[in-house]
Amino acid sequence: MKLQADCVPCLFKHALRTAKISTQDETKHWEVLSGLARLFSELPEDTIQVEVAGEIQKILADSIGDRDPYRHLKRHYNDLAIELSPQLRKAIETSEDPLLTAIRVAVAGNIIDFGVSDTFNVEQTIRDSLTREFAVFNYNKFCQHLAEAETILYIADNTGEIVFDRLLVEQLLQHNKQVTIAVRGGPAINDATLEDAIYVGFDKIVPIITTGTALPGTVLAKASLEFKTCFESADLVISKGQGNFEGLSHCSRSIVFLLKAKCQPIASELGVQPGDMVFYLS
Amino acid sequence: MKLQADCVPCLFKHALRTAKISTQDETKHWEVLSGLARLFSELPEDTIQVEVAGEIQKILADSIGDRDPYRHLKRHYNDLAIELSPQLRKAIETSEDPLLTAIRVAVAGNIIDFGVSDTFNVEQTIRDSLTREFAVFNYNKFCQHLAEAETILYIADNTGEIVFDRLLVEQLLQHNKQVTIAVRGGPAINDATLEDAIYVGFDKIVPIITTGTALPGTVLAKASLEFKTCFESADLVISKGQGNFEGLSHCSRSIVFLLKAKCQPIASELGVQPGDMVFYLS
Repeated sequence: MKLQADCVPCLFKHALRTAKISTQDETKHWEVLSGLARLFSELPEDTIQVEVAGEIQKILADSIGDRDPYRHLKRHYNDLAIELSPQLRKAIETSEDPLLTAIRVAVAGNIIDFGVSDTFNVEQTIRDSLTREFAVFNYNKFCQHLAEAETILYIADNTGEIVFDRLLVEQLLQHNKQVTIAVRGGPAINDATLEDAIYVGFDKIVPIITTGTALPGTVLAKASLEFKTCFESADLVISKGQGNFEGLSHCSRSIVFLLKAKCQPIASELGVQPGDMVFYLS
Repeated sequence: MKLQADCVPCLFKHALRTAKISTQDETKHWEVLSGLARLFSELPEDTIQVEVAGEIQKILADSIGDRDPYRHLKRHYNDLAIELSPQLRKAIETSEDPLLTAIRVAVAGNIIDFGVSDTFNVEQTIRDSLTREFAVFNYNKFCQHLAEAETILYIADNTGEIVFDRLLVEQLLQHNKQVTIAVRGGPAINDATLEDAIYVGFDKIVPIITTGTALPGTVLAKASLEFKTCFESADLVISKGQGNFEGLSHCSRSIVFLLKAKCQPIASELGVQPGDMVFYLS
């Protein structure tokens, strides 16, 4: 997905937030903002949103000297989600349609902003997601594709959320599918990396690969050969969250996008409203 | 007030909003964003917030070729406020302390975001402001200063709001004060200009002057001689809104600031929370 004008103020805001998480040194905050300003003053047309995010990460790392400022927060988000995992697994297993409930739990994981949430709010969000209507809901089509699929690539998004993804992956395994989980190839905001995938126990149930890049999304042109091979050969690809959608929305192969549209540019691209839940098979 | 890091994403957001009000041409939106990016990549230290706003207006005017994109909206805001004026004047006149009620109405004018409000919301905001506690409330001190003052300079802020300011100015006139109203010297976002002051009838009750600049705030170093003379000689200066506070907060003379703290940088400067109502005599 191309970078939209609306993304620019938002990217400044997020970069500043990241800088503030890392350091209280205001000179560093300004260094990050100036770096971004230089970047945006020279951007070529048709820049891909998630590639800019990569450039911003470089600016952040160079200025604040920390490639993984969300380290502690990511651990906290995973722990918070792990705590809720047993009751959610039970809710899925005892529900009328465990696969659909697991999909709803997985999208709840994408809705929750663990950064501003406590346990109470997380539980509230999950309850809402279990009953709320999807704005796009290609579930029947998905079930048809699933019935014919043997191999599935599941591209994860954030920490915390990845624990909920595990519950959906468990359901896919119960349908006798061969699932591979893909995470980021290095620290990217609060996105899940190999370390997180192992921390939440994915290594015990499925093969884990990475995109091969530390971008907060999937950009095929920059992905590792391992990822590209898996992406092309999988019978079904499930993509979680906005970052992956941004990179893969114009991809030629069929993909299942499972996300909450968190901002206007993404919502417009999907033909929905900001805040809507989307389960879209391209 | 110095430009804060937190202001940068916000300034990008507002510039883009202004560009979108003017034109649907996305090339122009990007031109504005690139212009801002170049500006922020070269900013000297200790830049005054409201001066940057002036630079941004130049970028906007050069890109979109319109020095007054809020023209129609400003008229709409004034009309909406004029409609409410009679009932507010009555509420003030029949209240126990008409001066205090007029102050509350004037701050309500600063709270209302006419851009996102309909009549219902405006009335609701006014009701709230009439009873809500101020976070800083130097009313007694203000009354003492007022008792000793003969001349008052009242520095207005936005359109719409300026109609509510008129109700407070009417009260000051009833206290036999000589009031002068100051507005912006040219179009600056949705701020009130000479045209607006006349449109809402200030010319019938008090002398009107301008700051001499089209900045969305008051920067003494750039103000006209007429404004500076009036500012220095007035017994009492009342400053409405954030834009004026940003420019005047470190000024040596005593000023009455009447505003809602709309963002974290301003709230921090005032020692209050974002959203708080402030009636502060410096």
